[in-house]
Amino acid sequence: MTAVDFEKFVERLADVSAEAIMPFFRTALAADDKAHGGAFDPVTEADRGAELAMRRLIEATFPDHGVYGEEFGHLRENAEYVWVLDPIDGTKSFICGLPLWGTLIGLTHRGRPCYGLMSQPFTRERFFGDGEAAYWRGPARGPEGARGVLETRKIASRRCPKLAQATLMTTSPLLIDPALREHFHRVERGARLSRYGGDCYAYCALAAGHVDLVIETNLHPYDIVALIPIIEGAGGVVTNWSGGAAALGGAIVAAGDPALHEEALKLLGA
Amino acid sequence: MTAVDFEKFVERLADVSAEAIMPFFRTALAADDKAHGGAFDPVTEADRGAELAMRRLIEATFPDHGVYGEEFGHLRENAEYVWVLDPIDGTKSFICGLPLWGTLIGLTHRGRPCYGLMSQPFTRERFFGDGEAAYWRGPARGPEGARGVLETRKIASRRCPKLAQATLMTTSPLLIDPALREHFHRVERGARLSRYGGDCYAYCALAAGHVDLVIETNLHPYDIVALIPIIEGAGGVVTNWSGGAAALGGAIVAAGDPALHEEALKLLGA
Repeated sequence: MTAVDFEKFVERLADVSAEAIMPFFRTALAADDKAHGGAFDPVTEADRGAELAMRRLIEATFPDHGVYGEEFGHLRENAEYVWVLDPIDGTKSFICGLPLWGTLIGLTHRGRPCYGLMSQPFTRERFFGDGEAAYWRGPARGPEGARGVLETRKIASRRCPKLAQATLMTTSPLLIDPALREHFHRVERGARLSRYGGDCYAYCALAAGHVDLVIETNLHPYDIVALIPIIEGAGGVVTNWSGGAAALGGAIVAAGDPALHEEALKLLGA
Repeated sequence: MTAVDFEKFVERLADVSAEAIMPFFRTALAADDKAHGGAFDPVTEADRGAELAMRRLIEATFPDHGVYGEEFGHLRENAEYVWVLDPIDGTKSFICGLPLWGTLIGLTHRGRPCYGLMSQPFTRERFFGDGEAAYWRGPARGPEGARGVLETRKIASRRCPKLAQATLMTTSPLLIDPALREHFHRVERGARLSRYGGDCYAYCALAAGHVDLVIETNLHPYDIVALIPIIEGAGGVVTNWSGGAAALGGAIVAAGDPALHEEALKLLGA
């Protein structure tokens, strides 16, 4: 069984997630504070409902697969295939009514990310990849798009070997680990343009060739696993700040151009 | 002639602007650096083409009206009615491929903003208002929306009298005037949640009741004039940091709740 067998199934997972989430988008929400006494980290009914819906579909279809989700943790974590789920990556964007959050659906095979999809149901966009290639599906340009027609396009990260030419994104400098903030600012000062916000959308913009560098810290595996096969499939590079595998999360640096990734790694002092 | 007479005309302006801009969104762009030696401020063919298209339509329809646009400056600035245009508010979002930029179309009558529209062509959303009421038009929920059907809803800002409960947005703390940054951080530290990014989209999210407070500095009139009748029409308040009229730009504070606006003004030290 190769990763490509999963493709249609992953789309169904994104569909059931969207059905659970969209009734809550831009409606009054009671956002819990998940991190008691810590940073504000809203959890919503939407988040929980979507993860449960995806878990149910995985259980029914692949009862021997494992699942690791943001809301409900591990199930069969030693399975050959493990699904890594974040129903709403970018909950702050979500509660602000901004369409930059996404549902992250990743699949690992023996611990290695082999397929990933990001779904943004409001804009009707999906970014997906298997490490070899990556694609975007969304509204077609022009009148067809206005009638709801979708199109699929292969995406590729863009060449940008020099930091001085690079567009950098991070979700928020406030989310950068204070101990690492000076390292981040070192890169930021060298970049042509710095832009905040984005969460998973920033990595997808990188895979699609609009953004050159995304740098964050304190990521969980479910924040990044689904994005790895998209970024790598588009020709980009994503690792932790030490140049190691990104799948465990932590401090992450993604670049559309391998040479830029090298330069950023050096400045991050790893 | 009341502001409501203009409503359909403003939609046509947004249409011609979108036609000029969308072929350039998410394509390779040579972004000029407008502010020579200063901060990175991209100008695009899209920006210029859209403003020219809107100016042409205004000239042909209301030859005695004035125009003030980001790209091409003033024309008949002493006219009774003056259109205030920003074809792409949020050029950084635009070049990052993020759908948070918007076309701002404002109309002033004897210097007072009387109608405003924000158009986001990729998400097919429009926010508009006349100071008395405000509306959102965008994809209908569910299967109808997937077929391209749009719906229009009245919007209202939400009650949130206390900063401790408030969601705050600013485009970037780096864009806050350094001399005023401490005042901004004073408010930010008191807010429940702070979120960066957004440009005009942040003010529209406030008008629609998802965000409570937007604080920025160094705005031009064309960054804010179109948004004033939307915010006020939705029940919100928008002034400069001294509590004066927002139409001239500068340091701006918008709140969905008048009591929150009062509290923010005090903390901003005005």
